[in-house]
Amino acid sequence: LGPGAEFDRIRAIAEALGADAAGLGDDCAELGRAEGIIVASTDTSVEHVHFERNWLTLREIGHRSTAAALSDLAACGATPLGVVVAVAAPADTSSQELAELMAGAGDAARSAGTTIKGGDLSRGDCLMVTPTVIGTAERPVHRAGAKAGDGVWVTGVVGGARAALEAFRARIAPDPGARERFVAPVPRIAEGRWLAAHGARAMLDLSDGVVADAAHLAAASGVEVEIQLEQIPVHPDAVREALTVRAEPVIFAAKGGEDYELMVALTEADGERIAAEFEAAHGRTLTRIGTCHRGQGVRPMFRGSRLRLQGFDHFQ
Amino acid sequence: LGPGAEFDRIRAIAEALGADAAGLGDDCAELGRAEGIIVASTDTSVEHVHFERNWLTLREIGHRSTAAALSDLAACGATPLGVVVAVAAPADTSSQELAELMAGAGDAARSAGTTIKGGDLSRGDCLMVTPTVIGTAERPVHRAGAKAGDGVWVTGVVGGARAALEAFRARIAPDPGARERFVAPVPRIAEGRWLAAHGARAMLDLSDGVVADAAHLAAASGVEVEIQLEQIPVHPDAVREALTVRAEPVIFAAKGGEDYELMVALTEADGERIAAEFEAAHGRTLTRIGTCHRGQGVRPMFRGSRLRLQGFDHFQ
Repeated sequence: LGPGAEFDRIRAIAEALGADAAGLGDDCAELGRAEGIIVASTDTSVEHVHFERNWLTLREIGHRSTAAALSDLAACGATPLGVVVAVAAPADTSSQELAELMAGAGDAARSAGTTIKGGDLSRGDCLMVTPTVIGTAERPVHRAGAKAGDGVWVTGVVGGARAALEAFRARIAPDPGARERFVAPVPRIAEGRWLAAHGARAMLDLSDGVVADAAHLAAASGVEVEIQLEQIPVHPDAVREALTVRAEPVIFAAKGGEDYELMVALTEADGERIAAEFEAAHGRTLTRIGTCHRGQGVRPMFRGSRLRLQGFDHFQ
Repeated sequence: LGPGAEFDRIRAIAEALGADAAGLGDDCAELGRAEGIIVASTDTSVEHVHFERNWLTLREIGHRSTAAALSDLAACGATPLGVVVAVAAPADTSSQELAELMAGAGDAARSAGTTIKGGDLSRGDCLMVTPTVIGTAERPVHRAGAKAGDGVWVTGVVGGARAALEAFRARIAPDPGARERFVAPVPRIAEGRWLAAHGARAMLDLSDGVVADAAHLAAASGVEVEIQLEQIPVHPDAVREALTVRAEPVIFAAKGGEDYELMVALTEADGERIAAEFEAAHGRTLTRIGTCHRGQGVRPMFRGSRLRLQGFDHFQ
């Protein structure tokens, strides 16, 4: 690394990332050789839009934004090759603060089996973190591919991130379990890879919420997705938070984004068997929440009736 | 693509990019299979830091930021596989404006033999464009690798981008040739690949200026780089602009960044032959401007004396 203030900052970041940061400062990051099809995704987190500084530590901001980007690799069944992170920060941001931010990005990368390979530092009016994740997949799974008759399934439980978000906005401390889901979402890399290899017809990650993401699946696949809201597996802290704000828990959870669980379409014939094998392999639930039909759009059903709540409009 | 305002904007972008934009809107962009080592680079351009809206059209902003990122692939001798672009823009930015910006990004990608494969849209206080470029190289060339005795060479001519920048800052219209160098720099992809295959020991692109970039080469390679400033090939518009501001043209050019030409170290024995073959192959000059010695740092020489101008300090 050369002389100068920018390189001093890169040196502080390299120190925070430890042995993982061998190539920082060169023109390009090296990601090694790769079998399969190369895939990439980029995802910006902006202060005041995606987070507030008084909600999260800098390390958590780096972790969360990188985990969110890695989740896109999970959604297409890819294995990460590496992460590069562009950071724009106010001029008075210290080397120590940037190192904390990037240490969090490194935590997220490491927990997904990869490392930070490079990045870019710029000045900006507010803090913006743009991780780009690069991976490889033998057969990338897309949002298109679901067919009428397929079941729609989700991994794990949802609504936890929204429970934390509502608490942050109300200026109260979120429940620890919900906070963890918002602050350090876990990209479902192993689960996505397994599902891609075991019959996923279409897949995406839950970033906008179950109903909104089902609408994306429907549009890309050219089907109508019927969701049985009462089947949605709800995070326990989301149940508590929903009852506090007098909302129906499954609707509260269905409207919450940023859980970064996976939504996957499986054939009617194989779905139950695949789900049982998935649960045995990963120790995590795979729950059927809906069905694809001929048609278009999403049809949210609750206790046998089509839901037409005002609150669903901004998803459609 | 699903319903909603964000997807409406993505639709407008896909239309502007034409047939190149097949996969936009999915979780990951697909970049195909790749021989060799995967490399990546990310580079943010921020309004008010890297450009002003009254200097450039939106299409030019997209073009320039993407070309600058692609130049990093040239600097390591890589072939582009694809580009993903994260854009943060004020909430009142129209679909049409975003489509123009991305059409410019598409122009730059196409001129480097690749396409825009995906991206991300967010709100932000000012316009920020973060292209990430992914490529492949059989043997990526780094900033480290130059040895004492090697010659230091640059492609093409330099100083054009600075000539435009000085004019923009003085609120006068830059000369068209200089403006073109600032607005639509050409990443030297074919040249970088050729140099990587024909003996480049170390290479980087001229983003910070000849003297500052020579300091990076020196630090990474563990050598001292002596630059003969009078050997620097200066863009004709930079000569004119330098004389206008009463600067010595080679010093004006040496301090100017963002030309995106390549700086390469070649052995003393092979340099002249490689340069002749390079010029025959690419119709572009490769000019020797310096020599690596044992030691460290950069030693800018002008007419036989070591230069110790105040203005060089912020590079070191």
